[in-house]
Amino acid sequence: MRQPVPLDRCTRLLNHGPTVLVSAEHAGRRNVMAAAWSMPLDFTPPKVSVVLDKQTFTRTLVEASGHFVLAVPTAAMAALTDRVGSVSGRDVDKFAALPASAEPGPATGAPLVDGCIAWLECRRIPEPHNEQAYDLFIGEVVAAWADDRVFRDGHWHFDGADASLRSLHHIAGGHFFAIGDEVKYTPLGEG
Amino acid sequence: MRQPVPLDRCTRLLNHGPTVLVSAEHAGRRNVMAAAWSMPLDFTPPKVSVVLDKQTFTRTLVEASGHFVLAVPTAAMAALTDRVGSVSGRDVDKFAALPASAEPGPATGAPLVDGCIAWLECRRIPEPHNEQAYDLFIGEVVAAWADDRVFRDGHWHFDGADASLRSLHHIAGGHFFAIGDEVKYTPLGEG
Repeated sequence: MRQPVPLDRCTRLLNHGPTVLVSAEHAGRRNVMAAAWSMPLDFTPPKVSVVLDKQTFTRTLVEASGHFVLAVPTAAMAALTDRVGSVSGRDVDKFAALPASAEPGPATGAPLVDGCIAWLECRRIPEPHNEQAYDLFIGEVVAAWADDRVFRDGHWHFDGADASLRSLHHIAGGHFFAIGDEVKYTPLGEG
Repeated sequence: MRQPVPLDRCTRLLNHGPTVLVSAEHAGRRNVMAAAWSMPLDFTPPKVSVVLDKQTFTRTLVEASGHFVLAVPTAAMAALTDRVGSVSGRDVDKFAALPASAEPGPATGAPLVDGCIAWLECRRIPEPHNEQAYDLFIGEVVAAWADDRVFRDGHWHFDGADASLRSLHHIAGGHFFAIGDEVKYTPLGEG
Protein backbone atom coordinates (compact mmCIF):
# COMPACT_ATOMS: atom_id res chain seq x y z
CA MET A 1 0.00 0.00 0.00
CA ARG A 2 1.27 3.47 -0.87
CA GLN A 3 2.44 5.44 2.15
CA PRO A 4 4.10 8.86 2.46
CA VAL A 5 7.88 8.91 2.89
CA PRO A 6 9.40 11.80 4.91
CA LEU A 7 11.30 14.11 2.58
CA ASP A 8 14.51 13.75 4.59
CA ARG A 9 14.49 10.03 3.75
CA CYS A 10 13.34 10.19 0.16
CA THR A 11 16.78 9.98 -1.49
CA ARG A 12 16.95 6.44 -0.11
CA LEU A 13 14.35 5.49 -2.66
CA LEU A 14 16.93 6.07 -5.42
CA ASN A 15 20.30 5.54 -3.72
CA HIS A 16 20.62 1.95 -4.93
CA GLY A 17 20.40 3.02 -8.55
CA PRO A 18 17.12 1.61 -9.86
CA THR A 19 15.88 2.30 -13.36
CA VAL A 20 12.97 4.72 -13.06
CA LEU A 21 9.81 5.64 -14.89
CA VAL A 22 9.54 9.36 -15.61
CA SER A 23 6.00 10.64 -15.95
CA ALA A 24 4.46 14.03 -16.55
CA GLU A 25 1.15 15.66 -17.47
CA HIS A 26 0.18 18.95 -19.07
CA ALA A 27 -3.13 20.27 -20.34
CA GLY A 28 -4.80 16.89 -20.37
CA ARG A 29 -1.96 14.98 -22.03
CA ARG A 30 0.25 12.67 -20.04
CA ASN A 31 3.15 10.39 -20.76
CA VAL A 32 5.63 7.99 -19.20
CA MET A 33 9.12 6.89 -20.25
CA ALA A 34 11.90 4.79 -18.75
CA ALA A 35 15.25 6.21 -17.65
CA ALA A 36 18.32 4.39 -16.38
CA TRP A 37 20.12 7.69 -15.86
CA SER A 38 18.84 9.35 -12.70
CA MET A 39 20.30 10.02 -9.27
CA PRO A 40 19.74 12.04 -6.10
CA LEU A 41 21.56 15.38 -5.91
CA ASP A 42 20.95 16.66 -2.40
CA PHE A 43 19.33 15.90 0.95
CA THR A 44 17.82 19.19 2.17
CA PRO A 45 15.79 20.14 0.38
CA PRO A 46 15.90 16.86 -1.50
CA LYS A 47 16.82 17.15 -5.16
CA VAL A 48 17.12 14.64 -7.96
CA SER A 49 18.48 14.66 -11.51
CA VAL A 50 17.47 12.74 -14.60
CA VAL A 51 18.52 12.70 -18.25
CA LEU A 52 15.64 13.45 -20.65
CA ASP A 53 16.50 13.29 -24.34
CA LYS A 54 15.28 16.14 -26.52
CA GLN A 55 13.28 13.66 -28.60
CA THR A 56 11.07 12.60 -25.73
CA PHE A 57 7.49 13.75 -25.35
CA THR A 58 7.89 13.44 -21.58
CA ARG A 59 10.47 16.23 -21.72
CA THR A 60 8.01 18.45 -23.56
CA LEU A 61 5.45 17.84 -20.82
CA VAL A 62 8.01 18.49 -18.05
CA GLU A 63 9.02 21.79 -19.65
CA ALA A 64 5.39 22.83 -20.04
CA SER A 65 4.11 21.79 -16.63
CA GLY A 66 7.18 22.30 -14.45
CA HIS A 67 6.64 18.96 -12.73
CA PHE A 68 7.61 15.32 -13.10
CA VAL A 69 7.51 12.07 -11.16
CA LEU A 70 10.34 9.56 -10.83
CA ALA A 71 8.87 6.16 -9.95
CA VAL A 72 10.58 2.85 -9.22
CA PRO A 73 9.10 -0.04 -11.25
CA THR A 74 9.33 -3.67 -10.18
CA ALA A 75 10.61 -6.90 -11.68
CA ALA A 76 6.98 -7.70 -12.47
CA MET A 77 6.93 -4.55 -14.62
CA ALA A 78 9.99 -5.42 -16.75
CA ALA A 79 8.03 -5.79 -19.99
CA LEU A 80 6.17 -2.53 -19.40
CA THR A 81 9.38 -0.69 -18.47
CA ASP A 82 11.07 -1.99 -21.61
CA ARG A 83 8.08 -0.98 -23.73
CA VAL A 84 7.61 2.56 -22.42
CA GLY A 85 11.28 3.09 -23.17
CA SER A 86 10.80 2.03 -26.80
CA VAL A 87 7.75 3.92 -28.09
CA SER A 88 7.07 7.64 -28.17
CA GLY A 89 4.12 9.25 -26.44
CA ARG A 90 3.91 11.80 -29.25
CA ASP A 91 2.29 9.13 -31.40
CA VAL A 92 0.29 7.13 -28.89
CA ASP A 93 -1.30 7.53 -25.47
CA LYS A 94 0.84 4.97 -23.69
CA PHE A 95 -1.54 4.70 -20.78
CA ALA A 96 -4.30 3.69 -23.16
CA ALA A 97 -2.17 1.52 -25.46
CA LEU A 98 -0.29 -0.34 -22.75
CA PRO A 99 -1.39 -2.16 -19.65
CA ALA A 100 -0.54 0.91 -17.58
CA SER A 101 -2.60 3.08 -15.28
CA ALA A 102 -1.86 6.02 -13.06
CA GLU A 103 -3.45 8.55 -10.79
CA PRO A 104 -2.55 12.21 -10.30
CA GLY A 105 0.06 12.85 -7.64
CA PRO A 106 -1.45 14.71 -4.68
CA ALA A 107 1.33 17.32 -4.66
CA THR A 108 1.87 18.00 -8.36
CA GLY A 109 -0.85 16.36 -10.41
CA ALA A 110 1.81 14.46 -12.37
CA PRO A 111 0.95 10.77 -12.89
CA LEU A 112 1.86 8.17 -10.28
CA VAL A 113 2.14 4.95 -12.29
CA ASP A 114 0.35 2.04 -10.63
CA GLY A 115 2.36 -1.00 -9.61
CA CYS A 116 5.57 0.88 -8.80
CA ILE A 117 7.12 0.63 -5.34
CA ALA A 118 8.21 4.26 -4.93
CA TRP A 119 7.29 7.65 -6.36
CA LEU A 120 9.01 11.03 -6.05
CA GLU A 121 6.95 14.04 -7.08
CA CYS A 122 9.28 16.76 -8.29
CA ARG A 123 9.20 20.42 -9.19
CA ARG A 124 11.56 21.19 -12.07
CA ILE A 125 14.37 23.61 -11.20
CA PRO A 126 15.02 25.27 -14.55
CA GLU A 127 18.68 25.03 -15.58
CA PRO A 128 18.74 25.94 -19.29
CA HIS A 129 22.45 25.23 -19.81
CA ASN A 130 22.25 21.74 -18.32
CA GLU A 131 19.05 20.95 -20.16
CA GLN A 132 20.45 22.05 -23.53
CA ALA A 133 24.04 20.84 -23.21
CA TYR A 134 23.50 17.60 -21.30
CA ASP A 135 19.74 16.84 -21.41
CA LEU A 136 20.10 17.02 -17.63
CA PHE A 137 17.04 17.99 -15.63
CA ILE A 138 17.07 18.83 -11.93
CA GLY A 139 14.06 18.73 -9.64
CA GLU A 140 13.23 19.40 -6.03
CA VAL A 141 11.29 16.56 -4.46
CA VAL A 142 8.09 17.97 -3.00
CA ALA A 143 6.40 14.69 -2.02
CA ALA A 144 7.49 11.06 -1.85
CA TRP A 145 5.64 7.77 -1.54
CA ALA A 146 6.54 4.11 -1.24
CA ASP A 147 4.85 0.71 -1.08
CA ASP A 148 5.08 -0.38 2.54
CA ARG A 149 5.45 -4.01 1.53
CA VAL A 150 9.07 -3.21 0.59
CA PHE A 151 9.90 0.22 2.08
CA ARG A 152 9.16 0.89 5.74
CA ASP A 153 10.73 2.98 8.53
CA GLY A 154 13.06 4.65 6.06
CA HIS A 155 14.54 1.43 4.70
CA TRP A 156 14.04 -1.00 1.85
CA HIS A 157 13.02 -4.49 2.98
CA PHE A 158 13.38 -6.53 -0.19
CA ASP A 159 14.71 -9.63 1.55
CA GLY A 160 11.42 -10.59 3.13
CA ALA A 161 9.13 -9.62 0.25
CA ASP A 162 8.03 -11.28 -2.95
CA ALA A 163 10.75 -11.30 -5.63
CA SER A 164 8.33 -9.70 -8.10
CA LEU A 165 8.52 -6.50 -6.00
CA ARG A 166 12.28 -6.01 -6.41
CA SER A 167 13.53 -2.92 -8.25
CA LEU A 168 14.78 -3.14 -11.85
CA HIS A 169 18.25 -2.13 -13.02
CA HIS A 170 18.65 -1.77 -16.78
CA ILE A 171 21.87 -2.60 -18.59
CA ALA A 172 21.12 -2.33 -22.30
CA GLY A 173 18.72 -3.57 -24.93
CA GLY A 174 15.93 -4.57 -22.59
CA HIS A 175 18.20 -6.54 -20.27
CA PHE A 176 17.45 -5.90 -16.60
CA PHE A 177 18.79 -7.16 -13.32
CA ALA A 178 16.68 -7.20 -10.17
CA ILE A 179 18.19 -5.85 -6.98
CA GLY A 180 19.61 -8.70 -4.88
CA ASP A 181 19.96 -9.38 -1.19
CA GLU A 182 21.50 -7.27 1.53
CA VAL A 183 25.27 -7.72 1.87
CA LYS A 184 26.43 -8.84 5.30
CA TYR A 185 29.91 -7.75 6.36
CA THR A 186 32.01 -6.84 9.37
CA PRO A 187 32.78 -3.10 9.43
CA LEU A 188 36.45 -2.12 9.51
CA GLY A 189 37.62 -0.73 12.83
CA GLU A 190 39.45 2.49 13.53
CA GLY A 191 42.84 0.76 13.48
CA MET B 1 41.51 -9.89 -15.31
CA ARG B 2 41.22 -6.21 -16.29
CA GLN B 3 40.43 -5.71 -19.96
CA PRO B 4 39.69 -2.56 -21.97
CA VAL B 5 36.03 -1.73 -22.65
CA PRO B 6 35.19 0.11 -25.89
CA LEU B 7 34.11 3.67 -25.10
CA ASP B 8 30.80 3.22 -26.92
CA ARG B 9 29.88 0.50 -24.39
CA CYS B 10 31.29 2.06 -21.24
CA THR B 11 28.05 3.57 -19.94
CA ARG B 12 26.83 -0.01 -19.46
CA LEU B 13 29.27 -0.27 -16.58
CA LEU B 14 27.12 2.22 -14.62
CA ASN B 15 23.63 1.83 -16.10
CA HIS B 16 22.47 -0.51 -13.35
CA GLY B 17 23.21 2.07 -10.67
CA PRO B 18 26.09 0.66 -8.62
CA THR B 19 27.70 2.59 -5.80
CA VAL B 20 31.12 3.71 -7.02
CA LEU B 21 34.52 4.55 -5.64
CA VAL B 22 35.79 7.93 -6.78
CA SER B 23 39.57 8.24 -6.85
CA ALA B 24 41.99 10.98 -7.86
CA GLU B 25 45.65 11.91 -7.60
CA HIS B 26 47.56 15.18 -7.71
CA ALA B 27 51.18 16.03 -7.02
CA GLY B 28 51.90 12.78 -5.25
CA ARG B 29 48.78 12.72 -3.09
CA ARG B 30 45.92 10.41 -3.86
CA ASN B 31 42.56 9.58 -2.34
CA VAL B 32 39.45 7.48 -2.71
CA MET B 33 35.87 7.98 -1.51
CA ALA B 34 32.55 6.22 -2.00
CA ALA B 35 29.61 7.76 -3.87
CA ALA B 36 26.10 6.42 -4.32
CA TRP B 37 25.21 9.40 -6.48
CA SER B 38 26.63 8.96 -9.95
CA MET B 39 25.18 8.25 -13.39
CA PRO B 40 26.03 8.28 -17.09
CA LEU B 41 25.14 11.46 -18.97
CA ASP B 42 25.83 10.70 -22.61
CA PHE B 43 26.96 8.02 -25.08
CA THR B 44 29.20 9.81 -27.62
CA PRO B 45 31.53 10.95 -26.36
CA PRO B 46 30.68 9.12 -23.15
CA LYS B 47 30.11 11.36 -20.16
CA VAL B 48 29.35 10.68 -16.51
CA SER B 49 28.29 12.74 -13.52
CA VAL B 50 28.99 12.36 -9.83
CA VAL B 51 28.20 14.34 -6.67
CA LEU B 52 31.34 15.37 -4.74
CA ASP B 53 30.71 17.21 -1.49
CA LYS B 54 32.78 20.35 -0.85
CA GLN B 55 34.20 18.74 2.29
CA THR B 56 35.87 15.89 0.43
CA PHE B 57 39.60 15.73 -0.23
CA THR B 58 38.88 13.78 -3.40
CA ARG B 59 37.11 16.85 -4.78
CA THR B 60 40.21 18.95 -4.08
CA LEU B 61 42.31 16.46 -6.02
CA VAL B 62 39.83 16.35 -8.91
CA GLU B 63 39.84 20.14 -9.16
CA ALA B 64 43.64 20.26 -9.07
CA SER B 65 44.35 17.42 -11.48
CA GLY B 66 41.38 17.61 -13.84
CA HIS B 67 40.89 13.85 -13.70
CA PHE B 68 39.04 11.22 -11.70
CA VAL B 69 38.15 7.55 -11.83
CA LEU B 70 34.75 6.01 -11.11
CA ALA B 71 35.22 2.36 -10.16
CA VAL B 72 32.65 -0.31 -9.32
CA PRO B 73 33.45 -2.15 -6.07
CA THR B 74 32.23 -5.66 -5.28
CA ALA B 75 30.25 -7.31 -2.51
CA ALA B 76 33.60 -8.54 -1.19
CA MET B 77 34.60 -4.87 -0.81
CA ALA B 78 31.58 -3.79 1.26
CA ALA B 79 33.60 -3.05 4.41
CA LEU B 80 36.20 -1.09 2.45
CA THR B 81 33.53 0.84 0.55
CA ASP B 82 31.78 1.69 3.79
CA ARG B 83 35.05 2.79 5.38
CA VAL B 84 36.36 5.00 2.57
CA GLY B 85 33.03 6.75 2.71
CA SER B 86 33.44 7.47 6.43
CA VAL B 87 36.97 8.87 6.88
CA SER B 88 38.60 11.86 5.20
CA GLY B 89 41.74 11.62 3.10
CA ARG B 90 42.80 15.02 4.34
CA ASP B 91 43.81 13.40 7.62
CA VAL B 92 45.04 10.01 6.53
CA ASP B 93 46.45 8.28 3.44
CA LYS B 94 43.59 5.86 2.98
CA PHE B 95 45.60 3.60 0.72
CA ALA B 96 48.17 3.18 3.48
CA ALA B 97 45.71 3.02 6.37
CA LEU B 98 43.23 0.65 4.79
CA PRO B 99 43.59 -2.66 3.02
CA ALA B 100 43.44 -0.85 -0.32
CA SER B 101 45.84 -0.66 -3.23
CA ALA B 102 45.73 0.93 -6.65
CA GLU B 103 47.78 1.54 -9.72
CA PRO B 104 47.82 4.62 -11.95
CA GLY B 105 45.29 4.56 -14.77
CA PRO B 106 47.02 4.32 -18.15
CA ALA B 107 45.04 7.21 -19.61
CA THR B 108 44.93 9.70 -16.73
CA GLY B 109 47.28 8.58 -13.96
CA ALA B 110 44.35 8.64 -11.53
CA PRO B 111 44.25 5.57 -9.25
CA LEU B 112 42.51 2.38 -10.35
CA VAL B 113 41.54 0.71 -7.07
CA ASP B 114 42.40 -2.98 -7.02
CA GLY B 115 39.60 -5.49 -6.58
CA CYS B 116 36.94 -3.47 -8.40
CA ILE B 117 35.14 -4.93 -11.43
CA ALA B 118 35.02 -1.80 -13.60
CA TRP B 119 36.90 1.49 -13.91
CA LEU B 120 36.09 4.61 -15.91
CA GLU B 121 38.95 7.09 -16.30
CA CYS B 122 37.48 10.56 -16.71
CA ARG B 123 38.58 14.04 -17.68
CA ARG B 124 36.70 16.68 -15.70
CA ILE B 125 34.57 19.02 -17.80
CA PRO B 126 34.60 22.19 -15.70
CA GLU B 127 31.09 23.41 -14.92
CA PRO B 128 31.51 25.97 -12.13
CA HIS B 129 27.81 26.60 -11.57
CA ASN B 130 26.97 22.90 -11.21
CA GLU B 131 29.96 22.30 -8.98
CA GLN B 132 29.13 25.21 -6.68
CA ALA B 133 25.35 24.98 -6.60
CA TYR B 134 24.89 21.20 -6.69
CA ASP B 135 28.34 19.64 -5.98
CA LEU B 136 27.76 18.08 -9.39
CA PHE B 137 30.84 17.13 -11.42
CA ILE B 138 30.77 16.07 -15.05
CA GLY B 139 33.50 14.12 -16.80
CA GLU B 140 34.22 12.73 -20.22
CA VAL B 141 35.23 9.09 -20.10
CA VAL B 142 38.60 8.73 -21.84
CA ALA B 143 39.30 5.08 -21.01
CA ALA B 144 37.28 2.23 -19.49
CA TRP B 145 38.18 -1.16 -18.08
CA ALA B 146 36.35 -4.14 -16.64
CA ASP B 147 37.08 -7.48 -15.05
CA ASP B 148 36.34 -10.10 -17.71
CA ARG B 149 35.10 -12.56 -15.11
CA VAL B 150 31.89 -10.50 -14.91
CA PHE B 151 31.87 -8.11 -17.92
CA ARG B 152 32.52 -9.50 -21.39
CA ASP B 153 31.37 -8.66 -24.93
CA GLY B 154 29.71 -5.47 -23.74
CA HIS B 155 27.54 -7.16 -21.11
CA TRP B 156 27.57 -7.95 -17.42
CA HIS B 157 27.59 -11.69 -16.67
CA PHE B 158 26.91 -11.78 -12.95
CA ASP B 159 24.71 -14.86 -13.07
CA GLY B 160 27.54 -17.28 -13.78
CA ALA B 161 30.18 -15.67 -11.55
CA ASP B 162 31.01 -15.83 -7.86
CA ALA B 163 28.57 -13.85 -5.70
CA SER B 164 31.47 -11.96 -4.15
CA LEU B 165 31.99 -10.24 -7.53
CA ARG B 166 28.53 -8.64 -7.65
CA SER B 167 28.25 -4.87 -7.61
CA LEU B 168 27.24 -2.99 -4.45
CA HIS B 169 24.23 -0.67 -4.15
CA HIS B 170 24.20 1.53 -1.06
CA ILE B 171 21.02 2.55 0.71
CA ALA B 172 22.06 4.38 3.88
CA GLY B 173 24.22 3.96 6.94
CA GLY B 174 26.50 1.27 5.56
CA HIS B 175 23.63 -0.91 4.31
CA PHE B 176 24.27 -2.33 0.86
CA PHE B 177 22.42 -4.60 -1.51
CA ALA B 178 24.22 -6.69 -4.11
CA ILE B 179 22.90 -6.68 -7.65
CA GLY B 180 20.65 -9.69 -8.22
CA ASP B 181 19.90 -11.96 -11.15
CA GLU B 182 18.77 -11.09 -14.64
CA VAL B 183 15.01 -10.65 -14.98
CA LYS B 184 13.36 -12.94 -17.52
CA TYR B 185 10.23 -11.60 -19.20
CA THR B 186 8.25 -11.73 -22.40
CA PRO B 187 8.48 -8.43 -24.31
CA LEU B 188 5.20 -6.71 -25.08
CA GLY B 189 4.20 -6.82 -28.73
CA GLU B 190 3.19 -3.98 -30.98
CA GLY B 191 -0.50 -4.56 -30.27
